[in-house]
Amino acid sequence: MAGEFELIARHFTRAGRPAAPGVALGVGDDCALLVPEPGQQLAVSTDMLVEGRHFLSTIAPERLGHKALAVNLSDLAACGAEPRAFTLALALPRGDDAFAAGLARGLFTLADAHGIALVGGDTTAGPLVLSITVIGQVPPGQALLRGGARAGDRLWVSGRLGDARLALEVFRGRVELAGHAFDTVRRAMELPQPRVALGLALRGVATSAIDLSDGLVGDLGHVLTRSGVGATVEVDAIPRSEIVAAHASTLQHTCVLAGGDDYELLFTAPPAHDEAVRAAGRKAGVAVTPIGRIEVEAGLRLMDAAGRAIAFNERGFDHFA
Amino acid sequence: MAGEFELIARHFTRAGRPAAPGVALGVGDDCALLVPEPGQQLAVSTDMLVEGRHFLSTIAPERLGHKALAVNLSDLAACGAEPRAFTLALALPRGDDAFAAGLARGLFTLADAHGIALVGGDTTAGPLVLSITVIGQVPPGQALLRGGARAGDRLWVSGRLGDARLALEVFRGRVELAGHAFDTVRRAMELPQPRVALGLALRGVATSAIDLSDGLVGDLGHVLTRSGVGATVEVDAIPRSEIVAAHASTLQHTCVLAGGDDYELLFTAPPAHDEAVRAAGRKAGVAVTPIGRIEVEAGLRLMDAAGRAIAFNERGFDHFA
Repeated sequence: MAGEFELIARHFTRAGRPAAPGVALGVGDDCALLVPEPGQQLAVSTDMLVEGRHFLSTIAPERLGHKALAVNLSDLAACGAEPRAFTLALALPRGDDAFAAGLARGLFTLADAHGIALVGGDTTAGPLVLSITVIGQVPPGQALLRGGARAGDRLWVSGRLGDARLALEVFRGRVELAGHAFDTVRRAMELPQPRVALGLALRGVATSAIDLSDGLVGDLGHVLTRSGVGATVEVDAIPRSEIVAAHASTLQHTCVLAGGDDYELLFTAPPAHDEAVRAAGRKAGVAVTPIGRIEVEAGLRLMDAAGRAIAFNERGFDHFA
Repeated sequence: MAGEFELIARHFTRAGRPAAPGVALGVGDDCALLVPEPGQQLAVSTDMLVEGRHFLSTIAPERLGHKALAVNLSDLAACGAEPRAFTLALALPRGDDAFAAGLARGLFTLADAHGIALVGGDTTAGPLVLSITVIGQVPPGQALLRGGARAGDRLWVSGRLGDARLALEVFRGRVELAGHAFDTVRRAMELPQPRVALGLALRGVATSAIDLSDGLVGDLGHVLTRSGVGATVEVDAIPRSEIVAAHASTLQHTCVLAGGDDYELLFTAPPAHDEAVRAAGRKAGVAVTPIGRIEVEAGLRLMDAAGRAIAFNERGFDHFA
């Protein structure tokens, strides 16, 4: 059982490491000091993860550390921003050394992969809650926003959708999956990969973007509302794993349309940019798939491959619903 | 009972208001976009408040909103940084409209008083937890840090200490206070005033600073360790209210030395700056009081007015202790 200051010192300060680029002063004073790059705007986002709601108590601490930072980096990715720094506020039920060590390991491994520094921290006893704020940078006018979709744009999605939701259904006891298949979807739920490189590659290519955290229907709805447009989505074109595809179409629809926790990018671009979008995907090493079209007519229309309307009434994931 | 997106839209976005200075894009997209002022460093800090630990369930939502932002602004104050923007992550046990409205009112009243914008938010169901990250600015080399105290410096404190701790002792049933006195100390606990103006006025005047959140002994310890010095504090010189002063000296010592939740500034300056320190206090409209001296000899020595050593073994407030 370690005290608050010991826990911070042991796991969340990394003495002797060179300061990250742009960090004049790291953790350990009342504030950290950052040196913004001239001519860049700052992109700022915050996400909080609460046990039992954003993650299950069965998650390994290392994966939890990864996920808490990943979902925040995903917001920077959706804006086409380059990650620079993050803060972490952490409530832990107990001063558990092994848990904190695992959490820090997962967190810093992902932070190091993106070259960003922890520049502020607060640790306290309490119900298990992680709150992270990320700070990135983007040149003025180049941020990808939700409001830029235009009628005629193609609608794209990165990676594949629905694995995380399928894993949740297994934990809920509604679906059974054998060992390897379960490991795969559980990995998608617990170790999402923020599409930072894709977001950067889509600057000047995509007209709008959002990251999929609450399910495609709900998140696309934000884009349509902010952009003042509608869309048709070809549901069968939404990329999904063979594991998801092996289930009944109702469950598949839940997984790919209202899944939540995908952390893939949903974005729009004019058809003239098709090749540039594919090049961005190749550059970032992630699949990009066209799944529909932005239209003048408001609302969202879901179609199957034969062009027949698909009825779907589930809302996006709402943390109070 | 309102859903997550409704709550955010209703209480935490303020459509139609002009964007704050330096805010290119506020809440409502994946990220907010800030425009840093050329030549300024960014000061970043984060603090999390958990019900039952950092505040009691008896606090009015408006005061809780104030306090959550105030304790973060206090960190900027301690660095001599000018507040610019903040993010809020909020877990609420239920989608309670009246509670959220009160919280937002307290939060935005203080934010408006400091001219800063909410630039990122996340609301979720969960145990009542508020996590705020503040971003401020300070010219390079002018931040007040913990490591700058030098032997010979005078030790100063702003305002008065101990009221918040005395209020906590009343809530704990260990102290009884009559109506008006209780209201006064309760106000100190629930409505701390971040000393932002004082921090700004102390740039170039103070050699080090910290804000008192965990009690004077513990927080001064951070300054001494980082600065590689020691100190003598004249305990009777520590400013306190008549309400605190009316109690036995043991309780007074607990309140002013290990109180926690004071959110006053503790800072050092060479005696040649005495008049400049007093001028800074007048400019900021807050009392500043000399309470001791920084010395070469490591460690903290507590003395009474007659120069006799005072024994005091309580540690600063540790959230895991």
